[in-house]
Amino acid sequence: MPVRPVVALAGGVGAARFLEGLVQAIPASDLTVIVNTGDDRDFFGLRVCPDLDIVTYTLAGRVRRDTGWGLEGDTFQALDALRGLRDDAWFQLGDRDLATHIHRSARLAEGAGLAEVTAEIAERFGVGVELLPMTEDPAPTVVVRNDGRRTHFEEYLVRDGSPDDVASVDLSQAERAEPAPGVIEAIRGARTLLLCPSNPVVSIGPIRAVRGVEAELQRRGDAVAVSPIVGGRPVKGPADRLLRAQGTEVSARGVAGLYAGIASGLVIDQADAGQAGEIESLGLRVSVLDTLMTNPAIARSVAEAALALAETS
Amino acid sequence: MPVRPVVALAGGVGAARFLEGLVQAIPASDLTVIVNTGDDRDFFGLRVCPDLDIVTYTLAGRVRRDTGWGLEGDTFQALDALRGLRDDAWFQLGDRDLATHIHRSARLAEGAGLAEVTAEIAERFGVGVELLPMTEDPAPTVVVRNDGRRTHFEEYLVRDGSPDDVASVDLSQAERAEPAPGVIEAIRGARTLLLCPSNPVVSIGPIRAVRGVEAELQRRGDAVAVSPIVGGRPVKGPADRLLRAQGTEVSARGVAGLYAGIASGLVIDQADAGQAGEIESLGLRVSVLDTLMTNPAIARSVAEAALALAETS
Repeated sequence: MPVRPVVALAGGVGAARFLEGLVQAIPASDLTVIVNTGDDRDFFGLRVCPDLDIVTYTLAGRVRRDTGWGLEGDTFQALDALRGLRDDAWFQLGDRDLATHIHRSARLAEGAGLAEVTAEIAERFGVGVELLPMTEDPAPTVVVRNDGRRTHFEEYLVRDGSPDDVASVDLSQAERAEPAPGVIEAIRGARTLLLCPSNPVVSIGPIRAVRGVEAELQRRGDAVAVSPIVGGRPVKGPADRLLRAQGTEVSARGVAGLYAGIASGLVIDQADAGQAGEIESLGLRVSVLDTLMTNPAIARSVAEAALALAETS
Repeated sequence: MPVRPVVALAGGVGAARFLEGLVQAIPASDLTVIVNTGDDRDFFGLRVCPDLDIVTYTLAGRVRRDTGWGLEGDTFQALDALRGLRDDAWFQLGDRDLATHIHRSARLAEGAGLAEVTAEIAERFGVGVELLPMTEDPAPTVVVRNDGRRTHFEEYLVRDGSPDDVASVDLSQAERAEPAPGVIEAIRGARTLLLCPSNPVVSIGPIRAVRGVEAELQRRGDAVAVSPIVGGRPVKGPADRLLRAQGTEVSARGVAGLYAGIASGLVIDQADAGQAGEIESLGLRVSVLDTLMTNPAIARSVAEAALALAETS
C-alpha cells in the first residue's frame, strides 16, 4: 500500500471535527489518520475504542452531533437492560454503537489485528480515509489522582466526571507498545503531517509515546498542529486539568511549548492572536483564524489554514 | 442447598408454557428445572442459551408472547447494525435480550460457571425457580442433513428454517459432557420428576444423553411426561421431522415409546385419547385432557394433571 500524502494524528471529538473539514479540502483517499487508542477499554468483554469510533462515525456522517460521540439517533435499550444485570454499566453505549464493539471483539477473538478490524469497520461505514490505530497492543492511559488512585482514562473522564484532582498522567503502557503496522511508514512518508486539535496530554501524548513515533516526529520536525486551547480554555474535555497537572500553561502558547520539538507550525484562534509572537519565538510559524469548528465550513477553513501553513513551513 | 421436591426436564417454548402453569400449582421455591443446553451457541463471541433464556424470560413474565422467545417489546437496533457489519447475523437477538448474552459471556470469561451465571440471571429477573443448565460443558446438538452436512441445531432450526432433510441427530457431544453441579442430585432427590412437553429428540434427548443422567432416570423410572405431540403433530417446532428421522412415529404413542424406560406416566391430549390403551400397555399410566396451553389456566390444568399422575404412578 503506498503511503498517503497527508497524515494526521488524532484523538476524538475535536480531531473528528477537524478531519471533517480536512476531507473537504483534500480527497479522503489522500489521508491517513493515526488514532489514539489510549482510551480503549473492555466493557463487559467488549473492546471499545472511543477515538477510533468517533473518527469513523464522524467521517461517515453518522456521529451524534450534540455530543460528538455515538451514533445519531441511537437507542440505549441494551445498556438499560445491562444496568439491570450488572453494576458497572456506566459507559454510554448505544444499541447500534454496541454492534461495532461486538463485531470488533469477535474479529479480535478470531485473531484479526486491531488495524485490520479498524479498516474493515471503516470500509463498512463507507469511510475512504485510512484509519490506523496507534498500536495494536494494550496501551491504556492511566490518570493518577491526587489520592493516589490509578484510574483508566475513561474511568476518570466518564465514570468520575473528570474532576480537578489529577496528580499525573501515566503513559508507560503506551511507551511499551509497538506501533501498529503502517504507523511509522505513514509518518515517515507523508508529505504533510498534521496534529489535530486534540488533547496534547491524553490524545496526542499517547501516540507520541508509542515506541519509535516520537523519534520519527522529531526527525521530521515539520508537523503543523491546530491548538485545542482557545482563549485559555479547552474547546471540549478536561485538557485544562491535565495540562495543569503536568505544569503546562493552559494556553495556545503552552500547547506550542509541548509541540516545539516536533512541529513547525501552529494554527491558533483569533482569541489567542496576542500570543503569536511568543509562539513564533519558539520556532513555529503561526496562522491565526476563527478555529471554533461550530460548522463544517469553519472546519474546512481551519484545515485549509493548516495545509497552507504546512506548505510554507 | 437442599434438593427441591419437584424437578422438571425442559427445552424451550413448550416447556416454558408448562412451567408457567406449574408455578401456579406449586410454589416456585419447590421447583428445579434442568434445561437443555444443546441449542447453545456463540454468536459473534456472545454465548446464547436459547432454552435457558426462554424459560427465564417466561417465568419472569417478560417473554414475547407471540413467538414464545425473546423479550416482550424488545427492539432490534444492534442486530440491524450488526447486519451492516457482518454476514452471519441471522439469529434473532433483541437489544435487551443481547444484554443477557453480553453479561453471561462476560461472567463466563471471568471464570464463572454456566450454572452460577444462570442462577444470577434468574435472580436478577426475579425468577424463584431454580434453573440448572444440563451441563457446563459444550454439548451442541448436531443435525446431520440428507446431503451429509453437519449443522448446529440452531443453524438447522433458524438459519435454514428447519427443512425436512434430517438424516440423523448427533448427541455425541452431550454424551461426553459432565452434568452441571446439582443435576444428578436434583434428579435423585426429587419427590416428583417431570418431563416438560418439549421435543423428545433435541430438547429432552440431550439432557438424557449427558453422562449419568439416563442411568439416574432409569433407576427412578417414575417420571411423568407431557406429550409435545398433539393429534399427530408437534405443537411447535420441527419435532415431526426429527422424530421421523430416527424412525419414531409422530404421535403420543411414539413419544410414550421413547419415554417407556424412564417414565411411569404420560399426559396426552384429548385428540389422542384413542391411543391411551396402547400407551398403558407400554407400562405408563395416562391422563387425558386439553393440553394446548393457549392460556395460563390451561397450562395450570396440564401441570396439575401431571402432578396428580405422579402421585398415583
